[in-house]
Amino acid sequence: MRIIRENNTQMQAGRQIGCLNKGLGSIPGDSSAEQIVQLGWNLLREDLSLPTAVLYRDRLEHNLGWMQRFMDAYRVRLAPHGKTTMAPRLFQMQLESGAWGITLASAHQTMVAHAHGVHRVLMANELVGRQNMQMIANLLRDPEFEFYCLVDSAAGVELLGRFFSVLGLRLNVLLELGVIGGRCGVRDDVQLEQVLSALAKWNNAIQLCGVELYEGVLKEEKDIRAFMQRACDVTRTLLERNAFARKPALLSGAGSAWYDVVAEEFAAAEFGDAVEIVLRPGCYLTHDVGNYETQQRRILASNPIARETRSGLVPALHIWAYVQSVPEDELAVVTMGRRDAAFDSGLPTPALHVRPGSSEPKPCLAHWETTKLMDQHAYLKIAAGDNVRVGDMIGFNISHPCLTFDKWRTIPILDEAYNVVDVVQTYF
Amino acid sequence: MRIIRENNTQMQAGRQIGCLNKGLGSIPGDSSAEQIVQLGWNLLREDLSLPTAVLYRDRLEHNLGWMQRFMDAYRVRLAPHGKTTMAPRLFQMQLESGAWGITLASAHQTMVAHAHGVHRVLMANELVGRQNMQMIANLLRDPEFEFYCLVDSAAGVELLGRFFSVLGLRLNVLLELGVIGGRCGVRDDVQLEQVLSALAKWNNAIQLCGVELYEGVLKEEKDIRAFMQRACDVTRTLLERNAFARKPALLSGAGSAWYDVVAEEFAAAEFGDAVEIVLRPGCYLTHDVGNYETQQRRILASNPIARETRSGLVPALHIWAYVQSVPEDELAVVTMGRRDAAFDSGLPTPALHVRPGSSEPKPCLAHWETTKLMDQHAYLKIAAGDNVRVGDMIGFNISHPCLTFDKWRTIPILDEAYNVVDVVQTYF
Repeated sequence: MRIIRENNTQMQAGRQIGCLNKGLGSIPGDSSAEQIVQLGWNLLREDLSLPTAVLYRDRLEHNLGWMQRFMDAYRVRLAPHGKTTMAPRLFQMQLESGAWGITLASAHQTMVAHAHGVHRVLMANELVGRQNMQMIANLLRDPEFEFYCLVDSAAGVELLGRFFSVLGLRLNVLLELGVIGGRCGVRDDVQLEQVLSALAKWNNAIQLCGVELYEGVLKEEKDIRAFMQRACDVTRTLLERNAFARKPALLSGAGSAWYDVVAEEFAAAEFGDAVEIVLRPGCYLTHDVGNYETQQRRILASNPIARETRSGLVPALHIWAYVQSVPEDELAVVTMGRRDAAFDSGLPTPALHVRPGSSEPKPCLAHWETTKLMDQHAYLKIAAGDNVRVGDMIGFNISHPCLTFDKWRTIPILDEAYNVVDVVQTYF
Repeated sequence: MRIIRENNTQMQAGRQIGCLNKGLGSIPGDSSAEQIVQLGWNLLREDLSLPTAVLYRDRLEHNLGWMQRFMDAYRVRLAPHGKTTMAPRLFQMQLESGAWGITLASAHQTMVAHAHGVHRVLMANELVGRQNMQMIANLLRDPEFEFYCLVDSAAGVELLGRFFSVLGLRLNVLLELGVIGGRCGVRDDVQLEQVLSALAKWNNAIQLCGVELYEGVLKEEKDIRAFMQRACDVTRTLLERNAFARKPALLSGAGSAWYDVVAEEFAAAEFGDAVEIVLRPGCYLTHDVGNYETQQRRILASNPIARETRSGLVPALHIWAYVQSVPEDELAVVTMGRRDAAFDSGLPTPALHVRPGSSEPKPCLAHWETTKLMDQHAYLKIAAGDNVRVGDMIGFNISHPCLTFDKWRTIPILDEAYNVVDVVQTYF
């Protein structure tokens, strides 16, 4: 099956990039990415209006290859969570690197992916609401579109069944498992049997295709392993009851933090051809210097496959901003704020420092620290006598890619010399 | 002077609203706001894809009038901070209600406002960087565009002077005052005199037009009043030294929390015709149920002008989302997350509850509480036996409008019957 549609005009042409978007240079009007690349912009020459988010091409490619090799080694499928970037250009790179499909979180996100030629979507969420169902129903009329969403309640199945049966459409669903105190998902066998009964009632419209969970609501590895084993047990029981309309059945889990443990446990269940295992990390593409870096250190230290690689994931996303004021010996104020970078799991950290006129950024001094983010400003703690001037450019690493991507509609991709070689659009 | 340009084709035509934007219903392709209104969408009939942000027309109009009357009573100008909404349609409403101009925070934001016909911008920030200066220089070639930005260092003035003198353009600036431990702004007379010397050197290109401060970095009313008095003293001294190129000189302050205190202090200085006072609250337009509601209670209790009004500001922005799962007796999971609502100064609070089929939302029960926000989900704490079902719609009040607006590219405006009567686009 072709995962990227070959003749999707909308994708091939690309939507025009708005000339009023943040973080670009001056363009005469709305332009294509190709037209912008031809302008020959370079970050260090100040061709971009800072603050801007940028992606580094070589680092993206490294991360793409690293994660695909990891998944291949476990013989599991990769369906990267696209909610992280919501950038169809990056979805395309992930699919071209071997991804099985794209994971998404809502009907809206699914519509965006489909409009850009993505042909297989795992919506790792419940589908609720008339208009959201209608949007998915519209996409299901495309015979080449393969779609799965989750169910975790008889009430939810009932609403889906009533909607899709009237339209004569079949909706593929996965049963979501959950834990007490967690998010969605059936907590116990009573709830599970209620969902199965509702599915049996609506089996003309709703097809059970597999089992799903999200382990990221748990914090301890042993709890995560136990949850995985429960998922394998449920999957085995449902296989025995011949409950799945899809062969192989799907078994899916894994956010960006614990994909190694999920891969290990699911692979150890040895389902063979009866089950197709689909893992869904999303943040690996750009990585970060916060929670995901911490997790990556754990993975590199403990996982045999990861240990064999020469290098783990690397941060591929920076926010660049200007020093706008140095009003005190130990304070530089920078033109970057909560409007530009995530701040929910660690503030951006200063990485590179360049004074306009130089063609070579230097590493920031180790004692520089972002101490506060306001809507449009960052406070950078420096030391008296540090060589920091108004007009200097600082490149920041970030924590939590998801909440950084959604602050940008357009993100330039740079080569190693900081030239703009592509421009990514997001659809949040 | 006309503040809204009359013949701005871009504004009159309106940019097309992307059919892939979040929170809309199904539209066949990119459409104008007028075309969307003609579709006759109604929130309660589930014509919109939730989650969606909505604005209530009657509440916007109430807030617009309230704040303009407050400013008029103090005989000060209102230049609402546009960074809050970045919605040119709302800028237009503010200007039509009597605003003197729009305040913005960056060259990019200024470019957006100018492209939509705003003719007077106070950029309450330093202007730094080659491309940012170039963007402003392009706008200054429009003889009808009136623009001010801030300076707080000799180094900054030097960079501006070199850039704008070469182009033969004149840039209007305000001197920013700051406090120790604060953000930007000159801390003392030494820094102030350095800035004045640099301005004298570049007086062919950079014109000092007034004095500015942002009191929101302080927490105590007495400190804020002292800061205001310092600003009045500096302004008086500079008037005596004939330092301002603009007559009347500008004196500007006030975020959304302390505008009453700033209005009082600046009005009490009795500058008469020599000074034009410009205040810059932005969040009043939609208000919130967090920090700004707390401040509003203080203002209504203490300010004589506010006390005379029958009603203060009212929340005009909701996020609507679906209940997607009720997996435990005391937990409902809702389709709204950090991608949809601000979470940096209080989580969204459940306000209205409606079951599809009903035409009348009910107030949410007082004990319902949002306890956690993930990227795409909210945890709503309910009590066992509460009448909450999968598929129910919940309207949430929000805290911190700025960080909610920037999560939406398109926001429908509703009338009192929840019909879509306009659609606002944002430009973050």
